[in-house]
Amino acid sequence: MKGKARIGVCDTTFARVDMGKIAEDELRRWGFRAIRYTVPGIKDLPVGSKKLIEERQCDVVIALGMPGGEPIDKQCAHEASLGLIMAQLMTNTHIIEVFVYEDEVEQEKELLKVVENRVREHVQNAIKLITSPDKLLKEAGTGQRQGFADVGPILR
Amino acid sequence: MKGKARIGVCDTTFARVDMGKIAEDELRRWGFRAIRYTVPGIKDLPVGSKKLIEERQCDVVIALGMPGGEPIDKQCAHEASLGLIMAQLMTNTHIIEVFVYEDEVEQEKELLKVVENRVREHVQNAIKLITSPDKLLKEAGTGQRQGFADVGPILR
Amino acid sequence: MKGKARIGVCDTTFARVDMGKIAEDELRRWGFRAIRYTVPGIKDLPVGSKKLIEERQCDVVIALGMPGGEPIDKQCAHEASLGLIMAQLMTNTHIIEVFVYEDEVEQEKELLKVVENRVREHVQNAIKLITSPDKLLKEAGTGQRQGFADVGPILR
Amino acid sequence: MKGKARIGVCDTTFARVDMGKIAEDELRRWGFRAIRYTVPGIKDLPVGSKKLIEERQCDVVIALGMPGGEPIDKQCAHEASLGLIMAQLMTNTHIIEVFVYEDEVEQEKELLKVVENRVREHVQNAIKLITSPDKLLKEAGTGQRQGFADVGPILR
Amino acid sequence: MKGKARIGVCDTTFARVDMGKIAEDELRRWGFRAIRYTVPGIKDLPVGSKKLIEERQCDVVIALGMPGGEPIDKQCAHEASLGLIMAQLMTNTHIIEVFVYEDEVEQEKELLKVVENRVREHVQNAIKLITSPDKLLKEAGTGQRQGFADVGPILR
Repeated sequence: MKGKARIGVCDTTFARVDMGKIAEDELRRWGFRAIRYTVPGIKDLPVGSKKLIEERQCDVVIALGMPGGEPIDKQCAHEASLGLIMAQLMTNTHIIEVFVYEDEVEQEKELLKVVENRVREHVQNAIKLITSPDKLLKEAGTGQRQGFADVGPILR
Repeated sequence: MKGKARIGVCDTTFARVDMGKIAEDELRRWGFRAIRYTVPGIKDLPVGSKKLIEERQCDVVIALGMPGGEPIDKQCAHEASLGLIMAQLMTNTHIIEVFVYEDEVEQEKELLKVVENRVREHVQNAIKLITSPDKLLKEAGTGQRQGFADVGPILR
Repeated sequence: MKGKARIGVCDTTFARVDMGKIAEDELRRWGFRAIRYTVPGIKDLPVGSKKLIEERQCDVVIALGMPGGEPIDKQCAHEASLGLIMAQLMTNTHIIEVFVYEDEVEQEKELLKVVENRVREHVQNAIKLITSPDKLLKEAGTGQRQGFADVGPILR
Repeated sequence: MKGKARIGVCDTTFARVDMGKIAEDELRRWGFRAIRYTVPGIKDLPVGSKKLIEERQCDVVIALGMPGGEPIDKQCAHEASLGLIMAQLMTNTHIIEVFVYEDEVEQEKELLKVVENRVREHVQNAIKLITSPDKLLKEAGTGQRQGFADVGPILR
Repeated sequence: MKGKARIGVCDTTFARVDMGKIAEDELRRWGFRAIRYTVPGIKDLPVGSKKLIEERQCDVVIALGMPGGEPIDKQCAHEASLGLIMAQLMTNTHIIEVFVYEDEVEQEKELLKVVENRVREHVQNAIKLITSPDKLLKEAGTGQRQGFADVGPILR
């Protein structure tokens, strides 16, 4: 499917890091071109992602957002997540949600690292989903994390 | 698309500021005419916006509301937001939600400013979405805010 | 549309005030006949209202309920509200939700007044929505409230 | 419709009382036969009830469950309730939700009574909904409760 | 239906135990072969399960996940649960949700046991749902639990 696969990247102007650019770069590393669409905020991601699937024929979409640290921001993220799940069910297509909360870590420098890692690792997940699901099967139940180090499986 | 684009404005009688009029004014500044529809409260916005899309052929809708400061008001806003997201998924059309909470700032004078700015900035977002998505792409990840000053990107 | 408009009234046996009768009376004052349907509780209102729209051809529905004061009652009201919004999106038809919480005021006498006023004012909203949307447009952003006195617009 | 009406009963193996049997017994008292379907837990009730409607042609379904007393159990019940409302909207058919929380009363003996009464009273509601909606209309706004004594209407 | 029944197993790379393998093993014990699909996290389970139903013709799906112990993890689980319920309603097919929270028990050793038992018992539930619903009917209201000991029925 490589080369032919259409991978959408939906991001926001609200985010404080150019997550879309990182996704684009990571996709290029694996031989894919990003089909980008930027919307204002995370609550615009569900329909934005669905449009990428239905109007621009994407096989998978990576939805990128950076919710703020206030309670209202977390509520917005919750609403966006439900919308992203619904959009997937309406299209039978995966939308990989990549959210980084502004208050996940204390230092901005650290936050940049989390964003960078989480976006790149989820881009790889999206690629695996549409080109080599067997690779995900091999990682089943191994405690993968995106953005921070993997926690690994619980040892018997 | 300018001139031909149909932009809906759905607002409420509950709001304490004539948000629809501000949106109408901002649209006029950019050469667009508002297709207006006023409903009683924010929970009436989802179907109101969907009707603007499906019965009056709007290409995008701006949904305006001012939730009160009580817990029940915030729950209503949450329900309205979920409905707006669902309406977008059912129509593949953006509905830009512009909510201003009565308790976001302390002074009424300040609140008026937030309303004014947020409505105008989101009207511009709606216009960009349907006429020049490339402009939003350029603003990707730049920490845009509506109503208050932009926070800007996190510097590397 | 007057005379021909079909207005549904969906209420519950759970409510402690005959809200449906008040709605019926208010509708009669304005020359409309209520098409009534009574269900057990508020969580039965979404499908009840949808049936009024799709099986009895109502142009708008007024959904009446009185949630109790316990946390579980508020959760039920939240679920019912989400259902009512969904029912509207599925039918492109307004359902005006009129809920009065048992603990909104302390005195039962006062509660009766709130119920009476809120039902009558929302019946008028429903009539305006289907017969004279221009009247709602004139009230846009004027701080209308139902049940209590209007708070009015924020003065510039 | 009596005799011909098809009434579904969806219950769980999780519940600690055989609610389905009580419903079946109450239905028999009124001349109806239960079409039963038992699923593991309350989150299986929405699709279970929808299958009773669409695959076994039920005219109404009674969905029975006993959520535990932990926060996670209450969240499950909330999710199940939303699913039951959605199932009703998708089928235009009533599903009467009969949930009894394990922590509603302190004594198990008392809990058994609540279950017994609530199931029987809601079975009667289901029968009225499909055979004699006029009976529910007469009870509109009368403060009906199921499981405990009715609270009655607020007196003017 | 045995032998011919198609049973899907959707699991995650996030989980810290290979739940899919346990499900596969339990299915084999009863003469069934698992149709496996591994996705990154629990929020990917709804569309993953729906794809197993609609694209790989599964008659039932077992959705396996291990939410972490943080509030955000519990919110993700809540969102995933709502999505799983919606996926079932859209397909009229059961998806048995098997979630084990990392903080359900204190010791990792104990957690492994809970996972093992819950997966195996729910696999049996899934098999019963599609091959012998009469067996579930016999267990109606008997206080079945998965992962821990059954609590049993409340004695009269």
